[in-house]
Amino acid sequence: MNVAVGVDLGGTKIAVGLVAADGAVRAQTRRETPDGPDAVVAAIADAVAELGDEARGRPVGIGAAGFVDAGRRRVLFAPNLQWTDVPLAAQLSDRLGTPVILENDANAAAWAEARFGAGAGADSMVLVTVGTGIGGGIVLDGRLVRGGFGVAGELGHLPLVPDGRPCGCGQSGCWEQYASGTALTRAARDLVVTALAAGTGAEALVAACGGDPEALEGTHVQDAAAAGDPVAGELLADLGRWLGRGLAAVAAVLDPGVVVIGGGVAGNGDRLLEPARAEFRRRLPATGNRPEAEIRPARLGSAAGLVGAADLAREAAT
Amino acid sequence: MNVAVGVDLGGTKIAVGLVAADGAVRAQTRRETPDGPDAVVAAIADAVAELGDEARGRPVGIGAAGFVDAGRRRVLFAPNLQWTDVPLAAQLSDRLGTPVILENDANAAAWAEARFGAGAGADSMVLVTVGTGIGGGIVLDGRLVRGGFGVAGELGHLPLVPDGRPCGCGQSGCWEQYASGTALTRAARDLVVTALAAGTGAEALVAACGGDPEALEGTHVQDAAAAGDPVAGELLADLGRWLGRGLAAVAAVLDPGVVVIGGGVAGNGDRLLEPARAEFRRRLPATGNRPEAEIRPARLGSAAGLVGAADLAREAAT
Amino acid sequence: MNVAVGVDLGGTKIAVGLVAADGAVRAQTRRETPDGPDAVVAAIADAVAELGDEARGRPVGIGAAGFVDAGRRRVLFAPNLQWTDVPLAAQLSDRLGTPVILENDANAAAWAEARFGAGAGADSMVLVTVGTGIGGGIVLDGRLVRGGFGVAGELGHLPLVPDGRPCGCGQSGCWEQYASGTALTRAARDLVVTALAAGTGAEALVAACGGDPEALEGTHVQDAAAAGDPVAGELLADLGRWLGRGLAAVAAVLDPGVVVIGGGVAGNGDRLLEPARAEFRRRLPATGNRPEAEIRPARLGSAAGLVGAADLAREAAT
Amino acid sequence: MNVAVGVDLGGTKIAVGLVAADGAVRAQTRRETPDGPDAVVAAIADAVAELGDEARGRPVGIGAAGFVDAGRRRVLFAPNLQWTDVPLAAQLSDRLGTPVILENDANAAAWAEARFGAGAGADSMVLVTVGTGIGGGIVLDGRLVRGGFGVAGELGHLPLVPDGRPCGCGQSGCWEQYASGTALTRAARDLVVTALAAGTGAEALVAACGGDPEALEGTHVQDAAAAGDPVAGELLADLGRWLGRGLAAVAAVLDPGVVVIGGGVAGNGDRLLEPARAEFRRRLPATGNRPEAEIRPARLGSAAGLVGAADLAREAAT
Repeated sequence: MNVAVGVDLGGTKIAVGLVAADGAVRAQTRRETPDGPDAVVAAIADAVAELGDEARGRPVGIGAAGFVDAGRRRVLFAPNLQWTDVPLAAQLSDRLGTPVILENDANAAAWAEARFGAGAGADSMVLVTVGTGIGGGIVLDGRLVRGGFGVAGELGHLPLVPDGRPCGCGQSGCWEQYASGTALTRAARDLVVTALAAGTGAEALVAACGGDPEALEGTHVQDAAAAGDPVAGELLADLGRWLGRGLAAVAAVLDPGVVVIGGGVAGNGDRLLEPARAEFRRRLPATGNRPEAEIRPARLGSAAGLVGAADLAREAAT
Repeated sequence: MNVAVGVDLGGTKIAVGLVAADGAVRAQTRRETPDGPDAVVAAIADAVAELGDEARGRPVGIGAAGFVDAGRRRVLFAPNLQWTDVPLAAQLSDRLGTPVILENDANAAAWAEARFGAGAGADSMVLVTVGTGIGGGIVLDGRLVRGGFGVAGELGHLPLVPDGRPCGCGQSGCWEQYASGTALTRAARDLVVTALAAGTGAEALVAACGGDPEALEGTHVQDAAAAGDPVAGELLADLGRWLGRGLAAVAAVLDPGVVVIGGGVAGNGDRLLEPARAEFRRRLPATGNRPEAEIRPARLGSAAGLVGAADLAREAAT
Repeated sequence: MNVAVGVDLGGTKIAVGLVAADGAVRAQTRRETPDGPDAVVAAIADAVAELGDEARGRPVGIGAAGFVDAGRRRVLFAPNLQWTDVPLAAQLSDRLGTPVILENDANAAAWAEARFGAGAGADSMVLVTVGTGIGGGIVLDGRLVRGGFGVAGELGHLPLVPDGRPCGCGQSGCWEQYASGTALTRAARDLVVTALAAGTGAEALVAACGGDPEALEGTHVQDAAAAGDPVAGELLADLGRWLGRGLAAVAAVLDPGVVVIGGGVAGNGDRLLEPARAEFRRRLPATGNRPEAEIRPARLGSAAGLVGAADLAREAAT
Repeated sequence: MNVAVGVDLGGTKIAVGLVAADGAVRAQTRRETPDGPDAVVAAIADAVAELGDEARGRPVGIGAAGFVDAGRRRVLFAPNLQWTDVPLAAQLSDRLGTPVILENDANAAAWAEARFGAGAGADSMVLVTVGTGIGGGIVLDGRLVRGGFGVAGELGHLPLVPDGRPCGCGQSGCWEQYASGTALTRAARDLVVTALAAGTGAEALVAACGGDPEALEGTHVQDAAAAGDPVAGELLADLGRWLGRGLAAVAAVLDPGVVVIGGGVAGNGDRLLEPARAEFRRRLPATGNRPEAEIRPARLGSAAGLVGAADLAREAAT
């Protein structure tokens, strides 16, 4: 049994792919995420059918944006989907008649990077995905760390700032409130508001959004930074420093050998990673008296989630 | 090979014991910690000799207060011993002619609790020792988590407060600056200073130290709390809340099934643990929508470090 | 010239009154706040006309929710009104043909409390109004402190938490994000969300909002606390502690003799003020070695703003 | 009565001068600060005698490092002198047979700068002295703000960081723990320790202290920064940013027209003040929508305290 189906279930899109044992994606399709578990199950089944005969009867792995139970059957809490305690694996398995396992999406991506990507060969790897929020996955000695209840690696909710910015998880000061694409957009808009009030400053960003702060997106910042705008570059560097700050906390717990940075924002490369590395080094306990994790960009891109989910499903079915 | 020698190397004392395969301590002795690695090696060798014929030639495990390298041979950084990069395992092995492995002391204790103590049976356990500082050890699926460079589980240096209290590790705001015996003593002394200035308040603590804040020790606070003094009880509860706060950060990374609290301060039982549990629950991301770690007192007491070190040595030698 | 007209211009309502030299309100009327400066000027003029012959030709003082310039003529920045740099005093003066002065609303209320209310007789008084946000006013030696540019006493924007909750002023961690009616409502809703997810807890608040967190208002919390509900009482106490925490910062700058707490939330009396006093004392620099400000409830209620504005106008016209 | 005597009483030195009505220092002498109030009174009397006939019988103003009571007679709390509640003015007045008033040293310096120095002409001025700690003084409309109990302007104890670095005042996170000469020295030493451990970095500072971090002083950092060392420059800039951060909090309360920066560290000029100005602007509530305080260096140097104390004494005696 050499191929398996991987599903990446996000708040806006569902990606489904047929993945070979070496991690190669043979075929792939997408759906918009409909409302409610039943419609999601139907959309996935439809996408699997579209992948053709080779996909039929194959084990399916789902990487879902949310908290997943230790048995890998239920979505416990998924704010983006507005789901609480949904038995998704059973529902899809009933529909398709194949084994289905469920995993947190960043865990699935971490597994993929550890097996086939930037973490290959590392005994101790942490993946941090920086997108709308922050996701995390931990692979130690060739095993995905799932925790006592399936919720290990929820790194976006690592508390960094006491009484800090409120988070959708019900807490405040979570890492993803400071080091995500959302945080980047918010910081950029604040800067533009101030510049407009002062009548000076942040010219490149003001131009990019046509003078309307609410029209400014993270991609404007990234493009401006790539084009050499120092204000946009500093916004990215600030995001990188918050990234490094959280990584130092992760290192106090796990001391990973390799940290892989994925997600859309990671596409900024060293404009993001160099400030992250510098801040990580500066904030590491006993810095200078210990070896330090290497911080690398992810290699598998946006397919990592479905590749990892498929590989976990194949492994579970073997 | 059923017995092994365990060593617990601290800043003030060295405990050495002969430990059976079931974790039972057959014999034990102590030395004061001398200055410098050579004298420490000599003191350990002398203590092993005192344990008699049964100890001779047995594998030795050392649990040391400090950062230990991934090869389990060298002490990288030990502020209490004022050591930097000492090849302790090789030195002791040369002296005794037996295999020696080195482990962080809290890691060794975690191993002991996971095998023989409060964590037995848990797939995912974190030990937090609350003493002068905070130590940590992580055992997942029957394996001690050592990290990419041997420094995993340095939980005392988890950053909780940005720009917070300075720490001996070179950073600031580390967990152990808020939730350790040292923090308890400092908070109690500050309270007594204020009460003396105001001419009222904290009567039990003022009496316990004879009106000299610098004479006040953590044990005074613990005794007063045990005797029902509400001021001392609140100091312990505050320590417990800081403990719970850090545990919520640990849970965001590892989601342990069981948290075991050890170290001297853990002797306060539920006066410490109940506030810790309440704060942990309050601060957990997505609290209410997920299962929660059980927070238990340690069971092996102060011998945990040497028991775990011996067991790790026995396992390595097998 | 013994009477003057006072105007309290808020984001939702405009209150206009005729005020005697002893601070007594002879007559009063209200309007909803219309959109835009022109409509606001018309509404005020209309309200003044309604007050009758005695009001005609009298000096007018406006207390406005926002930043006011040092010349007391222009609203520099009023997020609730969505105004930037509006010459309100001139516009109203043109319309009425009488002298008009403009003042920040909390400054006006502080003046009223210092002259006729809870601060009468104090050389050094700070008013803190706790409503939707936090307002502040400072009266030293019988003079209102207006600052170099008219913006003194913007206490709601005192920074308490680095990288804390975002604030409408463009900064983060401002006092009013933690110690206002808005903060109370948010904390109560979060508690209800968690209680609903856990299926237990916060029963009185869950009942008060019929199980819909978004329907919960601050008044529900205040009513429940008044009825003895411990959960609601703790929410108010927590607000009180944040209040005391900010007051300790104010005391480090100003060392006031009297602090007066006004605004809607202050109606909770000692359920709010006792925790505020305790936290203030606990957080005061050199506490125990210095006299401490008395923290009193305001006495003039919701009319304080227009009473103070009128008195300032009368004084300016004399 | 045109001249008066000014005394600047610090923890290590006492400066005594004869000051003319225009602020000019006609004569000056110094003593080391002896132990205990009696010896201090004797030392001051001896120094006044040394100033000669012109000083005899003149009113004396003392500026003391500590909390002073509202009656300007008693030192309430002076950690550097280790005094609590000392009736210093009465003791010196008894000894000299002249009127004596007592003032906080930074208040006295603020008065001098407002009358004769960098704050001359400003209606609303705050002095911040950056030395071992931070001192503050406030002058509004030609009057020194003393607060309800004499302790206004204790700006060094403005709380900036919740649960931050412990302070001698009994609180934690006080401004002076982050933006003082002491903080600068500590940050520089930490950097050197880290550089030595890593075997690279901070070369200029390592050289300046001969490789001994404990030998490194703030003056080394200032000299290195003046010579162009970027590491030292960044340390000063970081101090400047903390300075600006606290000033934004002061502005939320007082909105001063002018901020004067004095004390030894202020000698770094724009290397300190430019980062302070930038951070102040960045952190000001409603920044861009309001005028901003001008941040200026002090003009009177180390004599400011005794000049101001003398002038206050002359004014009180008139």
